[in-house]
Amino acid sequence: MALLTDLYQLTMAYGYWRAGRHRAPAAAELFFRREPFHGAFALGTGLAEGLRFLRAFRFSAADIAYLRSVLPSTTEDAFFDYLCTVDASEVTVSSVPEGSVVFSRVPLLQVKGPLLVVQLLETTLLCLVNYASLVATNAARFRLLAGPGMKLMEIGLRRAQGPDGGLSASKYSYIGGFDYTSNVLAGKLYGIPVRGTIAHSFIMSFTSLTEVQPRQVLPPLAGGEPVDLAALAESWLQRVCELLQSPPEKANRGELAAFVSYAITFPHNFQGLLDTYCVMRSGLPNFCAVALALHQLGYRAIGVRLDSGDLVQQSKEIRRVLRACGTTFQVPWFGSIPIAVSNDISEQSLESFIREGSEIDVIGVGTNLVTCPLQPSLGCVYKWPPQHTRGHGALHGPWHQLCVAKTRSPSPYRPLLPQLVEVNGSPCLKLTEEEEKMTIPGIKAVYRLYDDAGHPFMDLMALEDESAPNAGQELAVHVLGRRGEATKVRPTAVEPLHRTYFRDGQVCEVLPSLPEVRSHAQASLSQLSPAHRRLREPQPYPVAVTEKLHLLLAELRQARQ
Amino acid sequence: MALLTDLYQLTMAYGYWRAGRHRAPAAAELFFRREPFHGAFALGTGLAEGLRFLRAFRFSAADIAYLRSVLPSTTEDAFFDYLCTVDASEVTVSSVPEGSVVFSRVPLLQVKGPLLVVQLLETTLLCLVNYASLVATNAARFRLLAGPGMKLMEIGLRRAQGPDGGLSASKYSYIGGFDYTSNVLAGKLYGIPVRGTIAHSFIMSFTSLTEVQPRQVLPPLAGGEPVDLAALAESWLQRVCELLQSPPEKANRGELAAFVSYAITFPHNFQGLLDTYCVMRSGLPNFCAVALALHQLGYRAIGVRLDSGDLVQQSKEIRRVLRACGTTFQVPWFGSIPIAVSNDISEQSLESFIREGSEIDVIGVGTNLVTCPLQPSLGCVYKWPPQHTRGHGALHGPWHQLCVAKTRSPSPYRPLLPQLVEVNGSPCLKLTEEEEKMTIPGIKAVYRLYDDAGHPFMDLMALEDESAPNAGQELAVHVLGRRGEATKVRPTAVEPLHRTYFRDGQVCEVLPSLPEVRSHAQASLSQLSPAHRRLREPQPYPVAVTEKLHLLLAELRQARQ
Repeated sequence: MALLTDLYQLTMAYGYWRAGRHRAPAAAELFFRREPFHGAFALGTGLAEGLRFLRAFRFSAADIAYLRSVLPSTTEDAFFDYLCTVDASEVTVSSVPEGSVVFSRVPLLQVKGPLLVVQLLETTLLCLVNYASLVATNAARFRLLAGPGMKLMEIGLRRAQGPDGGLSASKYSYIGGFDYTSNVLAGKLYGIPVRGTIAHSFIMSFTSLTEVQPRQVLPPLAGGEPVDLAALAESWLQRVCELLQSPPEKANRGELAAFVSYAITFPHNFQGLLDTYCVMRSGLPNFCAVALALHQLGYRAIGVRLDSGDLVQQSKEIRRVLRACGTTFQVPWFGSIPIAVSNDISEQSLESFIREGSEIDVIGVGTNLVTCPLQPSLGCVYKWPPQHTRGHGALHGPWHQLCVAKTRSPSPYRPLLPQLVEVNGSPCLKLTEEEEKMTIPGIKAVYRLYDDAGHPFMDLMALEDESAPNAGQELAVHVLGRRGEATKVRPTAVEPLHRTYFRDGQVCEVLPSLPEVRSHAQASLSQLSPAHRRLREPQPYPVAVTEKLHLLLAELRQARQ
Repeated sequence: MALLTDLYQLTMAYGYWRAGRHRAPAAAELFFRREPFHGAFALGTGLAEGLRFLRAFRFSAADIAYLRSVLPSTTEDAFFDYLCTVDASEVTVSSVPEGSVVFSRVPLLQVKGPLLVVQLLETTLLCLVNYASLVATNAARFRLLAGPGMKLMEIGLRRAQGPDGGLSASKYSYIGGFDYTSNVLAGKLYGIPVRGTIAHSFIMSFTSLTEVQPRQVLPPLAGGEPVDLAALAESWLQRVCELLQSPPEKANRGELAAFVSYAITFPHNFQGLLDTYCVMRSGLPNFCAVALALHQLGYRAIGVRLDSGDLVQQSKEIRRVLRACGTTFQVPWFGSIPIAVSNDISEQSLESFIREGSEIDVIGVGTNLVTCPLQPSLGCVYKWPPQHTRGHGALHGPWHQLCVAKTRSPSPYRPLLPQLVEVNGSPCLKLTEEEEKMTIPGIKAVYRLYDDAGHPFMDLMALEDESAPNAGQELAVHVLGRRGEATKVRPTAVEPLHRTYFRDGQVCEVLPSLPEVRSHAQASLSQLSPAHRRLREPQPYPVAVTEKLHLLLAELRQARQ
């Protein structure tokens, strides 16, 4: 996997190596500049996969052989010899816990280590975090819209970016709050609950009850006699149609045969897909007939599914019929049989389900979940924060001297100053430099500040050697993007956001299981205040810096003018 | 990989097996219903990966163990025993050659075999073809806009759906007409040419020429003396700045140091990234200085790169300066140094490059290539075409009898009739049924018809036992979506579109190499008439059926009313 990177990382690595800078200490931060989907938050995910990548990070003999064929023939052998020895054993990674709510400009990951290695990790870490966080955030938005009671199922495998894209979608949708996936391999690999019953093709492969074989099913309790389910369902169909005042001949017998056949095969797990033919005159009566026949034997159907048409309207009509059957035939649970829907479900669909008071209980989401059409890429960046000097908070001497000094005599975790440096009196600024694009300098500690109600109200970045803010004490901070004086805040609680997950080539923190990450994500989301959590026109979440960091930023800005 | 599917495929498989239908012959077609991106064509790709999947298709012991944990405990052991024996040895696959231009409703792939297996292949084949074809088509559109002379490079790894999404993007963008990828692993695995030089981080890690070590470079020809490139570049900087009337102190010395250091490391492959500081006053003079110094030693710089700002305007100014340097310093090749650009390049960007007469030679495309934001999913479907009867072209007897007959006494490749069947007098149509969504019945042969100019002008679907149309002979056909009388056409050439690629568990056709697929795609695209090839408001490409198939369709339609 070490080759899963952009070639320029390797040409730069050779450049650093030839210039003798490859072991200079460096630090990089991975963050995004804007919350996706016009929301106020994202979920940070991809950490566990990033750590797995780090642990295994090395170049195989085959990798080196390939690189020899790609890099110029003038490339020194000694460089390849060196590459053979490179791994992540000198890399330290700190991160927010996987599944945490995160905000723009606050580092998700901090990576420290030798310049060459930190450089080589960039593309792969971005690749592992970007889509993971994007699709988890997308899933979280569906979850927030749907509410905690709705069951959400990811069904996007056929629309994902190939097999692995599909697996990533399943995994991170689960973290974001989905309950199930249709993807069996994701179930096997990650332990995500998988679900699925039948498609239209199964129903359309039957045309009459004569095709059903075997026709008998055993009651669930020991000692029961086998019953001809086909005959029983047919007799129930007459009663159901009578109740619904629907002509029994309108109920498609191929569909009934398919339902009966499936119910015989899965008596404990019978779900009816209602819309192969006419939902109200065929699919629903046929389903009720088979479900009532099963009930008579002691089984409960698990639900119905709709894959076309006006889902809200149909769900209401279906619920009415299910309730009527439940009452008439004295089957109390019948009225609350879960109604599942699919068919290009989007955030807008969910909004309409709620607005129109649907009777839907389970939602399958594919394309609009896995491809994130509202914003198909998160756009995380991996930047070297400009470093402050020995004086911590004051800029001593011209930057280039500091930089040279650092290159020549590296000290641990006192990285190079690769950005924003003002050198030799050149007044040229980086063209793309704007307030939003400025990388906040220094190796940082990040704190999440909570209010009385237990909501986080601000993320605060400090220099890592500043003392942590104290709960209950007033602090002066500077909110990014807000000009002028410091803001005074008094947090009720203060949470250090980052933990060190990787040190000396080893994962040094117990990693949570996937369900634990999922629970953490839901907890993290539920702590957010409604104003930050809402999906449309949310209140932006403030990210601030300490006075010290603010001064450093101001000095840097000035130095560059 | 057999588990890379939706669970319902497996529950249906158990349903078929329990009903004794699992070995009934079935046929499915994979196609899309609308060309993506509002264009008139797509590129069909994913075949080789689909065939690899088929060859390896079987359930491992671990897969079976997992399925036992997922399917109900009542699932019969004998089913799992049967699953252990399932493979694709009885499956036949025909397909258009990979990389061909394809159109909506025309099958890309046809899959024949036992019902249970054909059902189990659905999701995986869709997953392998959908994104592959989408991104190849997207790449082809970039290629068509850019013209054959422009170099296109895929740089989307960090924005793709994880590692494998990135690899798929690289591979299928190459097939679609890109020249290079930045993704080293894609280079290693697929032999795609990889490119890459430096990023801003490399440049910003230098602050002055004193940091450059080593400083010397050997001329390319044997016997030359090592030269201090840093000193030589500094002297050239004076001359360049004089020519450009730009103050030499405005040229950032860290940038110069980075260029020199990189040029010493890669004297044959020096490319300057110009926009870390000021392009015109710093990046460009520094590049010219280093490139001219290299030239003096006998090396040619390979280009410049821009990653921000107004790319068209800057490219023109840069070209002017390069030409001026070439003339003044008598370096004829200098004026034509390739200018590469990146930074969120989209189709719109390319259109503006052409409209405004840019001087750009190389374009890097990431997000807008790999995530296909204009349409993030192709939406291929996998359908069982309704089957015609023994009489070929006439419908004998009620459909359900045929269906039952077929189920009971299967004959090879005379599949089940699972769709559109009108059963037991039920007048209910499938709710979503529209003309566009109707699956064309029958196992089909597909022909591409060419006009005098060598352009394909129509794809024609026939029943597979109809004789092939002859070149030069008039044919009566019915264009899908066009009502009324038959259309008369007289093709100059007729090409059967499908070949059998998989039979008896083996790939039975020599598969082309990736570069051959890429060439085929370009040839296929270049044959298209300009009216079908253009990206905006293209003329829809006609897809037609023979008289026989048209009659069959009409009978089916009637039978369902």
